[in-house]
Amino acid sequence: MNNFEAAWLRYEKTKESESVAKLSGIVCDKKLQGNQIVQSAIRELQEGFRGLFGRELAVAESCCENRSIILSVDPLCPAESLQTAEVSPKTEPIGNSQTKKESRKESYRLSMQNGNVHITGSDANGLLYGTFSFLRKLTLQEDIQNLQEEKAPVMPLRMLNHWDNMDGSIERGYSGDSFFFVKNEVVVDERTRMYARLAASVGINAVVINNVNVKEMATYMITEKYFGKLDDMAEIFGEYGIKFYMSLNYAAPVELGELDTADPLDENVSNWWHEKMHEVFSRIQNLGGFLIKADSEGRPGPFTYGRTHADGANMLADAVAPYGGKIIWRCFVYNCKQDWRDLKTDRARSGYDNFIHLDGQFAENVILQVKNGPMDFQVREPVHPLFGGMTKTNEMLEVQIAQEYTGQQRHVCYLIPMFKEILKFKTYVNQDADTVCDIVSGKTFGQTNCGMAAVANTGNDENWTGHDLAAANFYGFGRLSFEPDLSAEEIAKEWIAMTFGQDEKVMQVLSKILMNSWPAYENYNAPLGIGWMVNPSYHYGPNVDGYEYDRWGTYHRADHLGIGVDRSHHGTGYATLYHEENAAIYDDPAKCPDELLLFFHHMPYTHVLRSGKTIIQHIYDTHFKGVEMVDEMVEDFLTLEDKLDAKRFNRMKERFFHQKEHAREWRDQINSYFYRKTGIPDEKGREIF
Amino acid sequence: MNNFEAAWLRYEKTKESESVAKLSGIVCDKKLQGNQIVQSAIRELQEGFRGLFGRELAVAESCCENRSIILSVDPLCPAESLQTAEVSPKTEPIGNSQTKKESRKESYRLSMQNGNVHITGSDANGLLYGTFSFLRKLTLQEDIQNLQEEKAPVMPLRMLNHWDNMDGSIERGYSGDSFFFVKNEVVVDERTRMYARLAASVGINAVVINNVNVKEMATYMITEKYFGKLDDMAEIFGEYGIKFYMSLNYAAPVELGELDTADPLDENVSNWWHEKMHEVFSRIQNLGGFLIKADSEGRPGPFTYGRTHADGANMLADAVAPYGGKIIWRCFVYNCKQDWRDLKTDRARSGYDNFIHLDGQFAENVILQVKNGPMDFQVREPVHPLFGGMTKTNEMLEVQIAQEYTGQQRHVCYLIPMFKEILKFKTYVNQDADTVCDIVSGKTFGQTNCGMAAVANTGNDENWTGHDLAAANFYGFGRLSFEPDLSAEEIAKEWIAMTFGQDEKVMQVLSKILMNSWPAYENYNAPLGIGWMVNPSYHYGPNVDGYEYDRWGTYHRADHLGIGVDRSHHGTGYATLYHEENAAIYDDPAKCPDELLLFFHHMPYTHVLRSGKTIIQHIYDTHFKGVEMVDEMVEDFLTLEDKLDAKRFNRMKERFFHQKEHAREWRDQINSYFYRKTGIPDEKGREIF
Repeated sequence: MNNFEAAWLRYEKTKESESVAKLSGIVCDKKLQGNQIVQSAIRELQEGFRGLFGRELAVAESCCENRSIILSVDPLCPAESLQTAEVSPKTEPIGNSQTKKESRKESYRLSMQNGNVHITGSDANGLLYGTFSFLRKLTLQEDIQNLQEEKAPVMPLRMLNHWDNMDGSIERGYSGDSFFFVKNEVVVDERTRMYARLAASVGINAVVINNVNVKEMATYMITEKYFGKLDDMAEIFGEYGIKFYMSLNYAAPVELGELDTADPLDENVSNWWHEKMHEVFSRIQNLGGFLIKADSEGRPGPFTYGRTHADGANMLADAVAPYGGKIIWRCFVYNCKQDWRDLKTDRARSGYDNFIHLDGQFAENVILQVKNGPMDFQVREPVHPLFGGMTKTNEMLEVQIAQEYTGQQRHVCYLIPMFKEILKFKTYVNQDADTVCDIVSGKTFGQTNCGMAAVANTGNDENWTGHDLAAANFYGFGRLSFEPDLSAEEIAKEWIAMTFGQDEKVMQVLSKILMNSWPAYENYNAPLGIGWMVNPSYHYGPNVDGYEYDRWGTYHRADHLGIGVDRSHHGTGYATLYHEENAAIYDDPAKCPDELLLFFHHMPYTHVLRSGKTIIQHIYDTHFKGVEMVDEMVEDFLTLEDKLDAKRFNRMKERFFHQKEHAREWRDQINSYFYRKTGIPDEKGREIF
Repeated sequence: MNNFEAAWLRYEKTKESESVAKLSGIVCDKKLQGNQIVQSAIRELQEGFRGLFGRELAVAESCCENRSIILSVDPLCPAESLQTAEVSPKTEPIGNSQTKKESRKESYRLSMQNGNVHITGSDANGLLYGTFSFLRKLTLQEDIQNLQEEKAPVMPLRMLNHWDNMDGSIERGYSGDSFFFVKNEVVVDERTRMYARLAASVGINAVVINNVNVKEMATYMITEKYFGKLDDMAEIFGEYGIKFYMSLNYAAPVELGELDTADPLDENVSNWWHEKMHEVFSRIQNLGGFLIKADSEGRPGPFTYGRTHADGANMLADAVAPYGGKIIWRCFVYNCKQDWRDLKTDRARSGYDNFIHLDGQFAENVILQVKNGPMDFQVREPVHPLFGGMTKTNEMLEVQIAQEYTGQQRHVCYLIPMFKEILKFKTYVNQDADTVCDIVSGKTFGQTNCGMAAVANTGNDENWTGHDLAAANFYGFGRLSFEPDLSAEEIAKEWIAMTFGQDEKVMQVLSKILMNSWPAYENYNAPLGIGWMVNPSYHYGPNVDGYEYDRWGTYHRADHLGIGVDRSHHGTGYATLYHEENAAIYDDPAKCPDELLLFFHHMPYTHVLRSGKTIIQHIYDTHFKGVEMVDEMVEDFLTLEDKLDAKRFNRMKERFFHQKEHAREWRDQINSYFYRKTGIPDEKGREIF
């Protein structure tokens, strides 16, 4: 029945160091033991010791003579060093020197004192994260003799967005069906708990369980029909410090048949939502708030009534405010019925143009959730100009670990290196703290309602993520949002060891595969930042012109002489939406980074890139190179046959073989397309069809 | 409940001529009155007179003093002139002078003698067709004073193939859902009878009610579960002289769980089918036989067991022979998983290559059903080389009135002119009777198991065919298969008058629209016979490269210099599959007709066509021209607002407006594609994107 694996919480038998061997139990005071999150921490320690060392840990209320793992909560923990340095309250203008010290929530300290391990949280969540960190160290056989670690999560919100539908399907799901919903019923079972453990173990503290496209029965999640089961699920999440969120249908008052309008400025609508939220928050205890996709791709929203997104979001924010609720409002708003013959409209501008003028108008408990790039999770996009564009609005960064455009979990594509680049991107909104990471962690503008969200990549497949290696993105997203300073490689290695053990060869091969996977995928995908050369709607497999003569606003504008979209000041002007330092670079083809050149400029195929190659030769070279990289990956992977268990090896092998073949399809279609269009032969005379 | 219209059997009030006014009843002898088909003829005459002239016709057994419509059957009718002239029995070699005279089945004679109208059939079907012809004359207000008409249907089988699925959907259905099946149940109601009347009125004598892709519950049509309802339906068909056919799942013995093989040479399999056919024919009285799609597009077949199509077909033919049953075996067999990089495999060859070596091996009651062209119902294809290729095998011509690739009944596309061209095509298989029409009518090889089949275009839409004007294809197919010598325009005019009445302006506008519709569609579709520039799987809307880098074997091979597939002897050799006279033309780009040039040859865009234009200019010109033709159609149509009833006018107007817009999409996408690929500007400087 419970057909799922433990992913990185396998706790496989390992050798016990001397200092660990001396730990005989858990000490935790009675009051703390009453906390459900602390109970989870205790259970996890027991589970961990059972698996890793084959022994039970007893729980005591106070210290005895034996050495123990001592759990405690101290609101002033961790040490001064981790206190937030420069928090300017949101109401203060940027750069204001008035700052205040305050304790960091959800932080923890690990230490070894007199042979006892101390796990101290600033609160229950911190304690739980400290526990998982400690267990990770044990799993990775780190020396704990001098254990000393203090961590506070960098992102206040570390959220997963599930695009699960009530009927059990998952929009952009590549790992089976939903484990939250089956046939319009909410499912709460052992998998719910396992999911919560996995999420909490990497620091996730918020989960939206249903698709942002709220349709059909999902609209009824805020009605009596579902409260019971949803509360059960929310309670389990709560035991792991995870706030429970739902996606909301903006037109719910109409679609539930109770009002004939959803106008946010209509008093009846506002009253309806206030009453509804009173009901929902009283029936679902651990509710954090709601995620809303409004006025986008056919979803209803305030535009229907001539109102702004601020009107819509604030009305809902007001209704959830009494319960500490948050409204997360997506900025993925654009005209999805563009005419391809229209050269002026630029979808890349639309998020910015729709929201920038509303900066400062949103309530404190509203967070705008902005996708990492202006388009839609392509393998390469510039950073969204709303980061650094808005200065008086809470923002959250949305990334996608569901590999919609990046191989759908049939290709390996470890995305943490991409997320690292995005987080490090300098927006130049101010001098000191201007990266995307600074902005969404709250550092830049002193915000606390901010953070990161990932579109989740899980389903009811036994291994959770379809491709075993795709779990590295789930793991990595959580770890990165907690500690953005970790390198992609450090995260990969942690995950590999947790998942496959400490064998050196396995580590070397799999970490190389993961680290090469995004560059390889980018190589054989659409070139130089132009994106979108996929089969429409499925978004899998190459199709150079698939979107070219369609609505959706996703064009490459290739003719026999050149390719790319002119988004400079001569063109759509998108490049000028950035702060001066970035605008100057993007606006000028001579300065624009190669990897984004065709996103910003229409260039002849014979243009010589900064790399010294022509565009056409770059296309050929990268596409041959991408396939070579995959071939090497597969060859390397196959050497692990006797190092991995047969089940996981074969499961991965099958996907690797598919990727090997499918990467060739990408290479050949894209190379053939451009060869046939330009007539320019490959300098190296390789086979192009 | 019975939400359907009468299509061309409206029998709207019309003025009665003197000679008609004198006809007071129907005379038909008692024995004949007992025949169900004759009863249908009588009912139809009564219904016709009720509608046309608002009066009842009484039925008498013998003549009285009043003038009557006298129905009779005379096996030697019609007159000598209509006897089959040169029928060489199938076993005789071609050109053998031994011929025999025989009466033509299903023929009729209409005459006026002493004020009585005589409708004489060679059999009940002939009598029914004579009746419909007489009613048609009355509807069209033809003078019957000198009534004298003798007709025998040219095609022995005049068949409709419905691609209706048991779940109620229709594969390639553009007129609503099935009226034969709803939710896996067989439906028999008043619509069944109306359908049979419509079909019989144009001479259809065989109908396959279910999709050739037999899946799921359709496999169970030959089991107890469905016999009752199917027999009810077959009985109604029988009352209109229509033989009832079903599509069969070749793997039925396996899928029904009764055997573990469907090997045609396995005795158990043969026995199973013999028993099954005994059961099916005893339970369904009016059963004519079965249609089978085997070893094609994933359907099972004899290839699975290393057997030939002849093995498979003959085994089934043997099982149905005792009941006079026929096995209709589709020749649409090809590798649907071709690699686009494979330049040698040619889907166009596959039907020919799969069947030609089996010529002469099929049982007498097997008919090979061959699509009109070698690909799949494109707007322009050469005639299938199996016509004239096979000389010792029964063949039936398959055309498609479901407008899969020709506008899906949202665009007007009157297909009879295309079918006329196909029927007239000279195969050069012999000197005298070598057209496709000669072959499938049985004239060439003296066959009787042959004819024409059309993939049907009906559904449960009120008007039967989605677009009101698409009914002209249903009507026209029947009429054409009965009398291939009728011109497309004659048929169009007949249909218009039957459907919309005799108004001169309506006739002029609608017949011009119908006659221009196929040329217009071809103009804005894929150029010069290359086909396939549609969105994959839906087959609607332009997508030049949609199939280009896909499996399915449907390529245009366009690069920046040229386009087309080399099917000459330098290329795939397809052109050489025709008899010498045709091969010489198709093989040579200088002789190949323009409209098929790119089907047979890969040519530079600058090649000058026989028309005097370059290929690229031809592409631009035809695409602008096609849109102009549609604009003119729509403009003309709109002048009929006060001539047509509002319901039908508005229904058509909506589709015309869509076609007007969608034709532009075709024009712009195709022109832009080639302009961007070639860089050659339009000589006339029109707007290309």
